[in-house]
Amino acid sequence: MPIVSDESRHILSSFETDLTRLRDMIAAMGGLVETELADATTALITRDAELAARVVEFDARVDAEERSIEQFAIRLLATRAPVANDLRQVVAALKVTTDLERIGDYAANVAKRTLVLNESSPAYPLASLAQMSRLVQENLKSTIDAIGDADIEKATAVWRADQMIDDLYTTIFRELITYMMEDPRNISACTHLLFIAKNLERIGDHATNVAELTYYAATGTSLPENRPKGDLSAAYFAQSKP
Amino acid sequence: MPIVSDESRHILSSFETDLTRLRDMIAAMGGLVETELADATTALITRDAELAARVVEFDARVDAEERSIEQFAIRLLATRAPVANDLRQVVAALKVTTDLERIGDYAANVAKRTLVLNESSPAYPLASLAQMSRLVQENLKSTIDAIGDADIEKATAVWRADQMIDDLYTTIFRELITYMMEDPRNISACTHLLFIAKNLERIGDHATNVAELTYYAATGTSLPENRPKGDLSAAYFAQSKP
Repeated sequence: MPIVSDESRHILSSFETDLTRLRDMIAAMGGLVETELADATTALITRDAELAARVVEFDARVDAEERSIEQFAIRLLATRAPVANDLRQVVAALKVTTDLERIGDYAANVAKRTLVLNESSPAYPLASLAQMSRLVQENLKSTIDAIGDADIEKATAVWRADQMIDDLYTTIFRELITYMMEDPRNISACTHLLFIAKNLERIGDHATNVAELTYYAATGTSLPENRPKGDLSAAYFAQSKP
Repeated sequence: MPIVSDESRHILSSFETDLTRLRDMIAAMGGLVETELADATTALITRDAELAARVVEFDARVDAEERSIEQFAIRLLATRAPVANDLRQVVAALKVTTDLERIGDYAANVAKRTLVLNESSPAYPLASLAQMSRLVQENLKSTIDAIGDADIEKATAVWRADQMIDDLYTTIFRELITYMMEDPRNISACTHLLFIAKNLERIGDHATNVAELTYYAATGTSLPENRPKGDLSAAYFAQSKP
């Protein structure tokens, strides 16, 4: 039955094309949130209110991208009725877009707080936050790369690296509290910086989620429930993340 | 062709049963996170460390529930290949579980902070947080009810009511900053209360997401992009939610 066979090859190959397109769309959305986070961080560090305002506006593009990926994924489910490995990839895609959209929201929130912060002058050195953001951005970039290449090793590396971000967050949290205690005039600005640090930490968590979903989509199995912890104190901090 | 006709009726009705089961599973998971939030709030207000510890443990049950709903939804997609309205309901279910899981995480985080708080004695009156949590719990309950009944009106009401929660959050945020400024010894405890208030506000947002998904699943259309705002000042607070 050569005709049937050709036909099924055709359908198969065309679904592969659709899956590749889905991955490309997600990688493109990932690129948008990477830019959003990088710009939000630059705006914070250089106190650039204009850039911060642009980041806040930019977030609508990320949301629109989420909706088109969702629509495409739903169309794939409806028209292709994928099963097994293919189905897993479409379901993972639907979940990844939710994480990326949240990352966009957190980056936009960093920009909104930057606009408020510019009215005051926090004594706290922003370099720590810049460093934390750099780690988060590296992790996010690796995650997005891992999606495009369905790269399990890269996904696993992201998942492990999140611990460093958590530890840096704990350090910054404590420093900010100290600054607030030393001079109550710092309280208002430092509170916004606390939430900015928390946003970065949450972005790191969502990047980890995406890495987990990438691993799941590629292998059909989940990464272990708990990430390996560096040592007991790190485990303690991570568990009671401030 | 009576046999085919009978067969397709059978398949249809059995898929309806599956969809009802899916909705019931989600409503049950919703019940779990409702309990988790109620207990976390009680633990906070009554300074009950034992209850707080139980809430932290309880969150694993919510996570397990998310995984079984996901597996059931994926099995439905694989074996039923639903389209149109049915497909929309399964996709919405997958997204709703993500929101409910996040609500569970936020409730567990309230409990974790309660454990830390019990080591100090914040001067801030917890009644405001109790009131905020009551509003959030009411909204969450309505959302869960709306899922079970596919009740569009209830879903829309939840979506509108979130503004009250946002306004209360802004008030609490400002009060907490004032407490911190008045006495630096309050800073550490009040920072945890700030994050607890933020967690409650985020739970409200996720309940709103669930309401939007319920509306979408039932109608195929989305609620408008922006919720109606009470007045200009409220819109300002909501936009730059502290």
